[in-house]
Amino acid sequence: MTDTTVPPTDLTDIDQIAQNAAAAADGWAGLEPTERAAAMVAVADALEAAGPELVAIGMEETGLSEARLTGELKRTAVQMRLFADTVVDGGYLDVRIDDADQAFALGVRPDLRRYRIPVGPVLNFAASNFPFAFSVAGGDSAAALAAGCPVVVKAHSGHPRLSVATADVVITALEANGAPAGTFQLISGQQAGVELLKHPLIAAGSFTGSIRVGRLLADIAAARPTPIPFYGELGSVNPVFVTTGALDENPEAIADGYLTSVSGSAGQLCTKPGFLFVPAGNTLGDILAEKAAGIGEHRLLNPGIATSYAARRAAILAAPGVTAVAEGALRIDEDGQGWATPTIVSVGIDDVVAQREVLADEAFGPLSIMVEYDESSDLVAAADALFEGNLTGTVHAADGEDSPRLRALIQWLSEHTGRVLFGGWPTGVAVTPAMTHGGPWPATTNDSSTSVGTSAITRFTRPVTYQSAPQALLPKPLRDDNPWSVPQLRTPAGESTNWGSAAKR
Amino acid sequence: MTDTTVPPTDLTDIDQIAQNAAAAADGWAGLEPTERAAAMVAVADALEAAGPELVAIGMEETGLSEARLTGELKRTAVQMRLFADTVVDGGYLDVRIDDADQAFALGVRPDLRRYRIPVGPVLNFAASNFPFAFSVAGGDSAAALAAGCPVVVKAHSGHPRLSVATADVVITALEANGAPAGTFQLISGQQAGVELLKHPLIAAGSFTGSIRVGRLLADIAAARPTPIPFYGELGSVNPVFVTTGALDENPEAIADGYLTSVSGSAGQLCTKPGFLFVPAGNTLGDILAEKAAGIGEHRLLNPGIATSYAARRAAILAAPGVTAVAEGALRIDEDGQGWATPTIVSVGIDDVVAQREVLADEAFGPLSIMVEYDESSDLVAAADALFEGNLTGTVHAADGEDSPRLRALIQWLSEHTGRVLFGGWPTGVAVTPAMTHGGPWPATTNDSSTSVGTSAITRFTRPVTYQSAPQALLPKPLRDDNPWSVPQLRTPAGESTNWGSAAKR
Repeated sequence: MTDTTVPPTDLTDIDQIAQNAAAAADGWAGLEPTERAAAMVAVADALEAAGPELVAIGMEETGLSEARLTGELKRTAVQMRLFADTVVDGGYLDVRIDDADQAFALGVRPDLRRYRIPVGPVLNFAASNFPFAFSVAGGDSAAALAAGCPVVVKAHSGHPRLSVATADVVITALEANGAPAGTFQLISGQQAGVELLKHPLIAAGSFTGSIRVGRLLADIAAARPTPIPFYGELGSVNPVFVTTGALDENPEAIADGYLTSVSGSAGQLCTKPGFLFVPAGNTLGDILAEKAAGIGEHRLLNPGIATSYAARRAAILAAPGVTAVAEGALRIDEDGQGWATPTIVSVGIDDVVAQREVLADEAFGPLSIMVEYDESSDLVAAADALFEGNLTGTVHAADGEDSPRLRALIQWLSEHTGRVLFGGWPTGVAVTPAMTHGGPWPATTNDSSTSVGTSAITRFTRPVTYQSAPQALLPKPLRDDNPWSVPQLRTPAGESTNWGSAAKR
Repeated sequence: MTDTTVPPTDLTDIDQIAQNAAAAADGWAGLEPTERAAAMVAVADALEAAGPELVAIGMEETGLSEARLTGELKRTAVQMRLFADTVVDGGYLDVRIDDADQAFALGVRPDLRRYRIPVGPVLNFAASNFPFAFSVAGGDSAAALAAGCPVVVKAHSGHPRLSVATADVVITALEANGAPAGTFQLISGQQAGVELLKHPLIAAGSFTGSIRVGRLLADIAAARPTPIPFYGELGSVNPVFVTTGALDENPEAIADGYLTSVSGSAGQLCTKPGFLFVPAGNTLGDILAEKAAGIGEHRLLNPGIATSYAARRAAILAAPGVTAVAEGALRIDEDGQGWATPTIVSVGIDDVVAQREVLADEAFGPLSIMVEYDESSDLVAAADALFEGNLTGTVHAADGEDSPRLRALIQWLSEHTGRVLFGGWPTGVAVTPAMTHGGPWPATTNDSSTSVGTSAITRFTRPVTYQSAPQALLPKPLRDDNPWSVPQLRTPAGESTNWGSAAKR
């Protein structure tokens, strides 16, 4: 076995790391969009070229399968290319140009031109459960690089050698393609992460991980002499609600989809469906028990997660009113690694609410809770009692089904999650412009944005307006000749006197 | 004299006030855009109809002039109408539709549709210095109402009766035009504001005021069990840099503009130019002294501001290296109100940096510091030493002037302010789509947005994505038939295989 130790970053180096990032900021932000995009595409290409080697390290360090990690690496590369195109498109700059207006309702309006600029160095805390897509070269790093920000990644301790190897690939590709030294750096160690988060030159933080650690870091970011935004993606239980009509249509498909979504990657996904609400008196239990028995054991990511999962699983199984549908198994090997098969339990809707102190929190691993309700159950009231914010919420309804009860549930989900699914399962998050991977606390520390999809770039930008600037001194995206061909929202003179006329009187 | 007492809100009423706001949330958010806009236009009309009465109360409570308050009321009404149009336009919803894509690079992409929804009840802490435009019916209230959020305003103690009278106008107009009861409420008293900010049903906070109070409230918002975004607009000194070429072109105009901008509303504006950097050996001092002598005294907003201003002014006048160009005057009357004429001081660039502990902070009142530099001075280094974030930064350069030194200064300003002006003066903030009234700490607690202009609406929204939803269950702005005719950014199928191709290779 190769050496698994990666020493923590020396705390005396933290200031220099921050200085390096700050020194790279103007150079990285100042590249032409096509140049920044080319450097990012080079990173994508280099990641794919190094794929087999990186996947092998990842398998060893995380216990995730070759297929899963190979797919995740591809996702990471595709994501980097998508963000490269986002940079060139320039829509994220949100360029707004107000023409000077002598007839403005409140006195002469000067020429005003606004766009979004990079905030500066970003510190990204990598996740344990996505060693590629939410780690060194993952979504937060891609979004920050695309925005024009230097990035420092705090490696997750669960895959230290993979982090170093990935960072080497990223740094080499960036610097060979015009990025200044310091555009991308890696640090290790909790204390190093905390110290850097407190450094005055760090302008924003991002994070994917637990509620406990995310809250700790968010509090540090908020308490700095100069507070900075901190975008943490934390915990979620992703409830799924199945109507009688949907269950009648195809119980087998629901059982299959549910079990696949719960057990994939050993349930260690932030969008794993932790709760399945189904009509009481169904046959789902038998189907699930049979299918679950056919699923082999999967290693959990690390010994810490194994210990936590063992405790959560035992507490849930022991809760009053809870019955094992598929009890599954969990064994801890001599290295402390946990090996699990899926555990599915059922509980009545009144019992789950009564036992919410035990049952409502996320169980990070291949466990899910089936909640049985009946025609008289108030699903919205139960959801209100059980859940805070979530990344996702799902309804399975029959084709064409519509009712006040269904609409009330959808309304509740839209107000308490970042993504509402109709059919399907929440795991597998598409990397696209319209994705929201976010949601009210504790799904995230800040639900104004998303950590997946092109809109994630906005988190690492802020607006600045140029007033009455000569064309020669304007940034290129604000110029009339628009050399980058970015979208420009133009507000002509003379409109202000009609304001209010769009209202229905 | 009429009764000036408005009792603080009883703390036992805070929960009910939060419940009222929450109860109104779905109803207010659920109005058709033209209906919400109509209610807002009705508010604008009602404010103008009540104008003379409101202005009279404002003059008595704040010492601001009739002309200033009449103009500010008009601005407040125009702003409300602009936001009404913003609601109907729907661009702020940021609708993105990704078509289902069988050929997606990472496996089948479902139909994904995203828009921004209102966050829920907003608590807005009103400012002292804009009793209309940044107070009860001001920009933050208009933006939150436009977003579809109920609003509770914490009245500023400096204009209590005006706050009550304005809130009456707003509430009457809203409720007569379809807004549910609870859409708009007013509270008074510091402790009531703090308690409501901590209430679980409050979803976001906004604030205009001092760094000390803004920081206190931001810390409370961040420390809640469920942290919420807090958009505070705090302190700013708005440096102005005049080049030799600009000063040579027209010293009289610069002196006039500067003095008007410093002394208007007794300097109690967050965009007052607190520093004017000018070439040494100029004649500006004499011109300013003469012009300043012609400006009459103006009352400061309240006794607390008078006391603070007296202390800041005395400290600045006593600082080593500081010379009075126009010493001005400050008297405190028997009611504790302060009456001031403008104070302009000059100091060398090395001295101002050396005395930055005394000089760099905002002096809220009609005082500004003229900093004299010479050809060898490093303006960027001085700015770095003196200033944190600012709302604005201004350069006055000669027509066609361009140099590396000028460009370095502009770059610095763009990275440390929310608005960079070329000529002109920072006071007088246009309410338009391209405005940024924000900037890095301590200009704001959160520089990702603006508190003036239509983009301010985004602060009170968050994204939610619908996945694979049937048309009948989609929110209207996400439907294919687009009944609200809002902008929809559509990403067709089949594009993902080309991602990365926009980069320059």
